[in-house]
Amino acid sequence: MELLKERIKDDGKLVSKEILKVDSFLNHQIDPRLMQEIGREFANRFKEEEISKILTIEASGIAVALMVGLELDVPVVFAKKKKASTMDSKVYTGEVKSFTKNRVYNISVDSTYINNEDKILIIDDFLAMGNASQGLLEIVNKAKAELAGIGIVIEKGFQPGGKLLREQGIKVESLAIIDSLADNEINFL
Amino acid sequence: MELLKERIKDDGKLVSKEILKVDSFLNHQIDPRLMQEIGREFANRFKEEEISKILTIEASGIAVALMVGLELDVPVVFAKKKKASTMDSKVYTGEVKSFTKNRVYNISVDSTYINNEDKILIIDDFLAMGNASQGLLEIVNKAKAELAGIGIVIEKGFQPGGKLLREQGIKVESLAIIDSLADNEINFL
Repeated sequence: MELLKERIKDDGKLVSKEILKVDSFLNHQIDPRLMQEIGREFANRFKEEEISKILTIEASGIAVALMVGLELDVPVVFAKKKKASTMDSKVYTGEVKSFTKNRVYNISVDSTYINNEDKILIIDDFLAMGNASQGLLEIVNKAKAELAGIGIVIEKGFQPGGKLLREQGIKVESLAIIDSLADNEINFL
Repeated sequence: MELLKERIKDDGKLVSKEILKVDSFLNHQIDPRLMQEIGREFANRFKEEEISKILTIEASGIAVALMVGLELDVPVVFAKKKKASTMDSKVYTGEVKSFTKNRVYNISVDSTYINNEDKILIIDDFLAMGNASQGLLEIVNKAKAELAGIGIVIEKGFQPGGKLLREQGIKVESLAIIDSLADNEINFL
């Protein structure tokens, strides 16, 4: 997606040769117009899949997922990192290893909101090691729902997450795949 | 907002006489069409205010704030509950007491994304004791930004948050104000 790649080039900040900061438009400050375009792009790439629900993870997946849900006219569910006090006791959980925070945590979805009749599109802002996606897949599997695919805004192609998911036969659509962040430069695949 | 009140009546669940659960359409599963209507309603109520930025708090404020930002064509910033490892060192922080979780935590916004030229609309899903709003106000004040007002999806009118904010002269617009949750019934003001 050219519009996104240009924005990453213009406003992304290299923190190190592994970390790209895009919090001026994606995951701290959000550009709603860009999110709308991203939502349309994902909707277009998955329009044949008869998706019934979008699944994402709080917090930075929500904005993207909402715009995809709006375009496809289906509900959006976000997995929670902490079980809320008002949440029903029956939940599906998944385990996520956080690369940046160096810890393991559980995510959960109330079992009311995903079931074996759903065809799920997983949406997230970043794909690096693929840990968040694996946690969300675990939830989809526990709910016996069908997976339509995974939509990612920015994939770090030099980390193994995308490869591991595609090797499982999953349709992974990434709008921008970064080949390298070395030499203080952002190179797309 | 009648559409919202009807939805609360139809799909809201009373957990106790103080707690209303709306996670089937607002803060766990999200109805994108309803969010779009809510975004339009807030945009209409604040259209004269020359707002430059929407400020909310992760996670359940993001969906609402995004749709308001889309309608008003301004960026959305969400305060984070934990400081991310990729966040710049200079942040504005606010303190929030959580009613449901019974603890105090800090929220923060990177100082790059809010400044003294901004006119801010604060958006959140719920207003009860007003603690999240007070934390966000603290950030607006520290950034020396101007406050246009506060937009709330559901206000619990029987708790003091709304009154305390309005007494400070703040324009608070709540789309549904609940008068009482007693006797297993949802009554609007």
